[in-house]
Amino acid sequence: MTNASLWPTHEADAFATRHNGPRPDEISAMLKFLGVDSLEALIAQTVPAAILDRSDCGIGEGLTETEALARLHEIASKNVVMRSMIGQGYYDTILPPVIQRNILENPAWYTAYTPYQPEISQGRLEALLNFQTLVRDLTGLDIANASLLDEATACAEAMALAQRVSKSKANAFFVDADTHPQTIAVLRTRAEPLGWELIIGDPQTDLKAETVFGALLSYPGSSGQVRDFRPVIAKLHENGAIAALTCDPLALTLLEAPGKLGADIAIGSMQRFGVPMGFGGPHAGYMAVRDAFKRNIPGRLVGMSKDSRGNSAYRLALQTREQHIRREKATSNICTAQVLLAVIASMYAVYHGPEGLRAIARRTHRLAAILADGLHALAVKVETSAFFDTITVDAGASAPLVLQRAREAGINLRDIGQGRIGISCDETTQAQDIKALWRCFCPDDSRLAALEEKLTLRDRLPETLRRGEDYLRHPVFHTHRSETDLLRYMRRLSDLDLALDRTMIPLGSCTMKLNATAEMIPITWPGFGAIHPFAPADQTKGYAELFAFLERALCAVSGYDAVSLQPNSGAQGEYAGLLAIRGYHRDRGDVERDVCLIPASAHGTNPASAQMVGMRVVVVGCDASGNVDLADLKAKLAQHEGRVAAIMITYPSTHGVFEEGVRELCEMVHEAGGQVYLDGANMNAQVGLSRPGHYGADVSHFNLHKTFCIPHGGGGPGMGPIGVKAHLAKYLPGRPEQGGEHAVSAAPYGSASILPISAAYVLMMGDAGLRRATEVAILNANYIAHRLEDHYPVLYRGAQGRTAHECIVDLRPLKDKVGVTVDDIAKRLIDHGFHAPTVSFPVAGTFMIEPTESEGKAELDRFCEAMIAIRKEISAIESGDIDMEASPLRYAPHTVADMVGEWTRDYDRATGCFPAGETAAKYWSPVNRLDNAWGDRNLICSCPDISEYAEAAE
Amino acid sequence: MTNASLWPTHEADAFATRHNGPRPDEISAMLKFLGVDSLEALIAQTVPAAILDRSDCGIGEGLTETEALARLHEIASKNVVMRSMIGQGYYDTILPPVIQRNILENPAWYTAYTPYQPEISQGRLEALLNFQTLVRDLTGLDIANASLLDEATACAEAMALAQRVSKSKANAFFVDADTHPQTIAVLRTRAEPLGWELIIGDPQTDLKAETVFGALLSYPGSSGQVRDFRPVIAKLHENGAIAALTCDPLALTLLEAPGKLGADIAIGSMQRFGVPMGFGGPHAGYMAVRDAFKRNIPGRLVGMSKDSRGNSAYRLALQTREQHIRREKATSNICTAQVLLAVIASMYAVYHGPEGLRAIARRTHRLAAILADGLHALAVKVETSAFFDTITVDAGASAPLVLQRAREAGINLRDIGQGRIGISCDETTQAQDIKALWRCFCPDDSRLAALEEKLTLRDRLPETLRRGEDYLRHPVFHTHRSETDLLRYMRRLSDLDLALDRTMIPLGSCTMKLNATAEMIPITWPGFGAIHPFAPADQTKGYAELFAFLERALCAVSGYDAVSLQPNSGAQGEYAGLLAIRGYHRDRGDVERDVCLIPASAHGTNPASAQMVGMRVVVVGCDASGNVDLADLKAKLAQHEGRVAAIMITYPSTHGVFEEGVRELCEMVHEAGGQVYLDGANMNAQVGLSRPGHYGADVSHFNLHKTFCIPHGGGGPGMGPIGVKAHLAKYLPGRPEQGGEHAVSAAPYGSASILPISAAYVLMMGDAGLRRATEVAILNANYIAHRLEDHYPVLYRGAQGRTAHECIVDLRPLKDKVGVTVDDIAKRLIDHGFHAPTVSFPVAGTFMIEPTESEGKAELDRFCEAMIAIRKEISAIESGDIDMEASPLRYAPHTVADMVGEWTRDYDRATGCFPAGETAAKYWSPVNRLDNAWGDRNLICSCPDISEYAEAAE
Repeated sequence: MTNASLWPTHEADAFATRHNGPRPDEISAMLKFLGVDSLEALIAQTVPAAILDRSDCGIGEGLTETEALARLHEIASKNVVMRSMIGQGYYDTILPPVIQRNILENPAWYTAYTPYQPEISQGRLEALLNFQTLVRDLTGLDIANASLLDEATACAEAMALAQRVSKSKANAFFVDADTHPQTIAVLRTRAEPLGWELIIGDPQTDLKAETVFGALLSYPGSSGQVRDFRPVIAKLHENGAIAALTCDPLALTLLEAPGKLGADIAIGSMQRFGVPMGFGGPHAGYMAVRDAFKRNIPGRLVGMSKDSRGNSAYRLALQTREQHIRREKATSNICTAQVLLAVIASMYAVYHGPEGLRAIARRTHRLAAILADGLHALAVKVETSAFFDTITVDAGASAPLVLQRAREAGINLRDIGQGRIGISCDETTQAQDIKALWRCFCPDDSRLAALEEKLTLRDRLPETLRRGEDYLRHPVFHTHRSETDLLRYMRRLSDLDLALDRTMIPLGSCTMKLNATAEMIPITWPGFGAIHPFAPADQTKGYAELFAFLERALCAVSGYDAVSLQPNSGAQGEYAGLLAIRGYHRDRGDVERDVCLIPASAHGTNPASAQMVGMRVVVVGCDASGNVDLADLKAKLAQHEGRVAAIMITYPSTHGVFEEGVRELCEMVHEAGGQVYLDGANMNAQVGLSRPGHYGADVSHFNLHKTFCIPHGGGGPGMGPIGVKAHLAKYLPGRPEQGGEHAVSAAPYGSASILPISAAYVLMMGDAGLRRATEVAILNANYIAHRLEDHYPVLYRGAQGRTAHECIVDLRPLKDKVGVTVDDIAKRLIDHGFHAPTVSFPVAGTFMIEPTESEGKAELDRFCEAMIAIRKEISAIESGDIDMEASPLRYAPHTVADMVGEWTRDYDRATGCFPAGETAAKYWSPVNRLDNAWGDRNLICSCPDISEYAEAAE
Repeated sequence: MTNASLWPTHEADAFATRHNGPRPDEISAMLKFLGVDSLEALIAQTVPAAILDRSDCGIGEGLTETEALARLHEIASKNVVMRSMIGQGYYDTILPPVIQRNILENPAWYTAYTPYQPEISQGRLEALLNFQTLVRDLTGLDIANASLLDEATACAEAMALAQRVSKSKANAFFVDADTHPQTIAVLRTRAEPLGWELIIGDPQTDLKAETVFGALLSYPGSSGQVRDFRPVIAKLHENGAIAALTCDPLALTLLEAPGKLGADIAIGSMQRFGVPMGFGGPHAGYMAVRDAFKRNIPGRLVGMSKDSRGNSAYRLALQTREQHIRREKATSNICTAQVLLAVIASMYAVYHGPEGLRAIARRTHRLAAILADGLHALAVKVETSAFFDTITVDAGASAPLVLQRAREAGINLRDIGQGRIGISCDETTQAQDIKALWRCFCPDDSRLAALEEKLTLRDRLPETLRRGEDYLRHPVFHTHRSETDLLRYMRRLSDLDLALDRTMIPLGSCTMKLNATAEMIPITWPGFGAIHPFAPADQTKGYAELFAFLERALCAVSGYDAVSLQPNSGAQGEYAGLLAIRGYHRDRGDVERDVCLIPASAHGTNPASAQMVGMRVVVVGCDASGNVDLADLKAKLAQHEGRVAAIMITYPSTHGVFEEGVRELCEMVHEAGGQVYLDGANMNAQVGLSRPGHYGADVSHFNLHKTFCIPHGGGGPGMGPIGVKAHLAKYLPGRPEQGGEHAVSAAPYGSASILPISAAYVLMMGDAGLRRATEVAILNANYIAHRLEDHYPVLYRGAQGRTAHECIVDLRPLKDKVGVTVDDIAKRLIDHGFHAPTVSFPVAGTFMIEPTESEGKAELDRFCEAMIAIRKEISAIESGDIDMEASPLRYAPHTVADMVGEWTRDYDRATGCFPAGETAAKYWSPVNRLDNAWGDRNLICSCPDISEYAEAAE
């Protein structure tokens, strides 16, 4: 018998009280300021009664941090860490502890946002430029981007790029049959809706260059074989087709650069540069292209520019931010990078330098060569003749036995099928592993005893493909060899940036909430990190349990019936969701349905995703209040009768409003035979209060890096799982062998290793905590709106005058009156120590402000006071006290450099530099305002050549 | 058969190449600059041939980081993590993950040095002031220090303090028999050499106040019993004796403050405020005293002062730095604090606030009360009638069975002996633990089933000792409740400070070398952290293995035969070493030997330690080169014939010189019947090159926080194990039950949980790496000496003109000429982004510079250039170009505040603020130069009262 009243509860430890910013007394004060009695009353004024649903999600009471960590530790311990020699694009690697602790585990790096505000992002921009230089140098091409989602999607992007730029009119793409299967699966998925034929074969024998717009060649092949593609590439070029090589970057430290072989595009994965396998991700994919295609490269690109003082500074160049994606022409919806992982990979290269990377590659190769020679001596048939780290052997009928023995020795090999086995060496491989493998093939001690003596060192890289030491000559790859030096370099870079550990980042729709330490701790446990994505299922039961929990939780929160965790970004989620809708219609014979309705206020990613699945975008208007114009919707539905595949809406809207008519909208679309895609970017306003699956949506993606606490990592990783109603469940992405129709990411569960973050969040918040977080997020946004509305017009409100979890303040009248731009105000906020809100989205000339529930009243007030102080500076311009061009707004952000020398401004130093009064702990922007135009004219996307240093010194 | 030539080595991964700063080409350049051909040649010029011994220490080849972490993980896994309910001064606690990761695992905090340079230490000084406020408020006394080593040594310090300040002439000290045994053991050790009698008994019945100078009372007692000591204290005061209460700080959140009860001194341990048990340490001990004794409080004290602009700033007040300890009167050699642990404890209190701490305490108490009531209902004899968290039961003959059942249930209890068992609840105790304990006493399901229903909530704190909510009212304990807020507060504080992650800290004799991440990682593993120091030996086999390894390694490195890991600071090591010498002489009947010879150049700690073991200090002179004057030594030996117990020397000398005559010196002292104590502070110049135990020393302490990479933690923890020759081995400290003669620290192995750091270092460096580190340390010091000698006189050199691992530059001539002080130059270095070298030790008016092996040539050059630039500024004064009082030297450090407003200085802003040219990433001192005199006149050692805020606002 339990006497419940006897025992203490641990309410005081409740994680939700640490996650949410405002204290109970602050909540009361804020509610009073808003003129409402309770949070419930505020919500009743905000969320339409028709969809409000406060029932629990069945998650139960929140766990304490200690309990959640224990639970996740138990889950992690159900994954079996083996020596992984599976290869197939994923390799064990050593993440230097100094990088792990000071980047991957350091909130200064992982809580940063995408570097749209370059002045306060110089640190990670420099690290990304190092990454781009690394990729450029290894590939021998001209320009590299700041990373892509993974190798397979990078290959799909390469195919799309080839199609855009190819001079060939052909409609087919050739794929090297010796390519990782997951890459081929993603290519198939991508090609089909766009009507491109995939031809898979041996490039040296099967390629008819005149029939294709491009080809993907694997270097080395998935089997490990290294081939000289120069003749193939020449043939492609003769026919105006594009040659894309997917390359292992570690192999490239020893093998001739793809650029030198003639490749137009090189893609691949930087995983093995220090990033744990993590059951498939996240890792940084990469892409490099010839100069001719530099303006076609998808994803993000860091470039050098100058600031207003003429000093060099970094920025995102040619940026393909979601709202910048051109709606009409999109063949890619890529709008993110894997920044945190790219930074790690770049630091790995900075730490090892070219000689260190070569040493790692040589040792890896040497072990593979010894392995092959030993197997050959043991009469095992080694198929691979020239290779870097991977060999394929034909073990015939004994293959199952060999694989079994290897597992017993703690080693996973690649079971290719039909008696063939793949074995990959990596940075962590030891002599004892090679000996253990020999024993798996030949457990005969007497033969093994004599084996080593017979072997001699033999290089198995093809003679014609050896490269020189023509890379990573920039000083940054030569000056941080001691741990002390690297530590200081990383600290210096992170100090340049402004992240959540120093200030609120009130970005509308980006939900920069707390990334709690307890959520982050499990991701660096080997039980999650050291697992190969293609490890046998009996070794990954912990991951299976984690996925099942998270799928259940996401279903319960959203009202959907099934979830896929595969999409590894929000845009991927949209794409996967639309593919599901497409599959559904086609299965029903509704092949004519190709219209995707999209409201005028949508993210740019939405139409881009629609076009990627072969849909035509039809825009639906919005009314004056920013809501979807239901009359126009009705008209469009009628106009495209029988052709409507889907509508893509965001809810609450991108205007930050809970539209009253959402149920009606869904019904109208359903009646017209269409499906409703509800963009989950704004789920942070819904969790625990309303469920898309219950009020009419058919599919949504969830940005786990927004609502579910995965940190933004300075611009990636993200995760975009999708939830669907039951009728769409069979169209969810999956790997072919899992019975799924298609794959959208390289790894079956996308960026699996960061899912513990969201799981920990859900576990610790529990039902009540999740609901409370949403309520507080809405409270905080309304508090800001109310505090600012006397100073700036607040656009768009719900039926009862409330905003959702974000609000839009209109700065256009100020531009019209005195010429002050959103940029001026955004940069002036830096002087106050703030990251600007979202600028000019969804409405040009406005700020969209989302404080999230994690900010307390003091920080909200500090922000409001900064905005009000800026408004006063604008008033001074209005009243003629100071000229706009002479005002601190135009000179913002102010830097230390401004303080030096003579001061000739119309305002004083203190006004310019310390508008908030703080001096001792002030954050200083390291550069003055960026000159974007200069950067666009002078595209420099890698570290300057050494010769430029020499010039500068002269 | 192994074919060794076949397999790759992992030389490229060698940790030593990451630990040591200079690259091979830099080493060559530096050697060339010094005019020597090789490192070996340099060493031959530096280390006297008579002691040079390059042989290996038997550690073998260095492991990679991965291998070392695997090895330590294996060791940790041999410790069994159980639910600990042993109590006895150590309690399980929850370290909030955000504090763990952002303080304990953050180099910005753990690599900082002791805050002697207050301007660049404001962050940790604020955290320490919070700690002092916490202690002051909880104890209800007037002033608290910045922490002591542990509870037992704090009690010993309290005894010594009582003896100093008591009005009683008595020579005895009364100790509450209900005090933790380890505390009594340390008190016995401390009292005996000083000739103080310890009287142990029940204070309520056995105390004769007129016979003692003071008493130690335990509140609660070790048994858990809470007694009202007001009558006892009154009796003590009537007799002019001092009342010291050792108090559990969590209990004090509910129990009347000792200050209110009349206590003069309160001491205890802050361990359970978030610091893992760690097999006994490190933790922060604390001490608070009445205002009357504020200038007698041992250890470090943070106080408020003002800077040159009149702004409030923190500093170490009344500091008892090693060289400040008064030689003649020392009764304490305390010269450190447990800063990192005190900071953690303070943040724990800042995060929970008074209401959170009370909630934790109430829950803990409630569970203990339920446990007691349940046991009573089960007819178990509970001895404790009034208690906070601990009860003692008399289980009689069934005690072994109960203890056994508890262990089977995963719970450790305290086996007091004679059938008595102690059980302590803590922050982590759950209802299920209480139920499990009931079952251990009564495994009868039917009786247990009915048990809970019978129980009702009952408070077991004595009615007369309940306290109000009269503490932690300062805003800092009320404004950081969300994780976001705490994270930003910790970041803001750490940004104020300059630690090794941003700059070299060239402190002579303090060896601020790399604290590698791989060394730090294991200390937060539960296998090391979650172990109670009195857990049964079969649960701590991992620790036993770790200790054995480290003892072997230290013996091998030093040439000694036995090591004790117990002393938890360098000063404790000296004390323990001298106790060993004392024991040795007494055992041989040499009771007359009470003279300790100490060279004039010694650390102040040396004579203080000597006096603590009852020795008389006799100073031996130094010659003009700074070496011990052997003629004077001879004279002193003759003068004190038959009375010489020991000599305490530092080697290489505190002047940074390998004295040639060290062997001869040792022989002379041995011939006179004395023992040689060799202070190991400078072991970083010896490891792998010479061994004190081989050239004549009998005992040394090793500063693991210097030579063996334990980080300084901003001023603690340290570790000072001692090594001895075989004849002294039986006099090493140990707990009485281990057969040792005496205890110097509360825990048997001192600060056990940080020993993995040193073990990892030794494992990863290997023999060759350790030797190479020493060579490079010597190279770096000589490089600096050579670069600076044209600009500043370099004092003291070895026979062949080389310095050891540090060098002294003489600034006195500059003072004489132009009035520039060492402080001026130290502060000016801050403007260059450097932490100053050691100031005025061992020679007033000089800098002692120790670069360590971890700094690369670039950083050494940056430092030398800063020193040379400063010398040029001094030349400008010499030549009359600028007046000393008007020079940037006098205004240093410059702050952002200097940049605001009108500039009226004789030099320009850039010269003042950016002497090194760097602006964007410049480190800014947050305050101007501290006014030490003001602080000494106005001692403020806790957060200002709220009333002062109100005044300021008016």
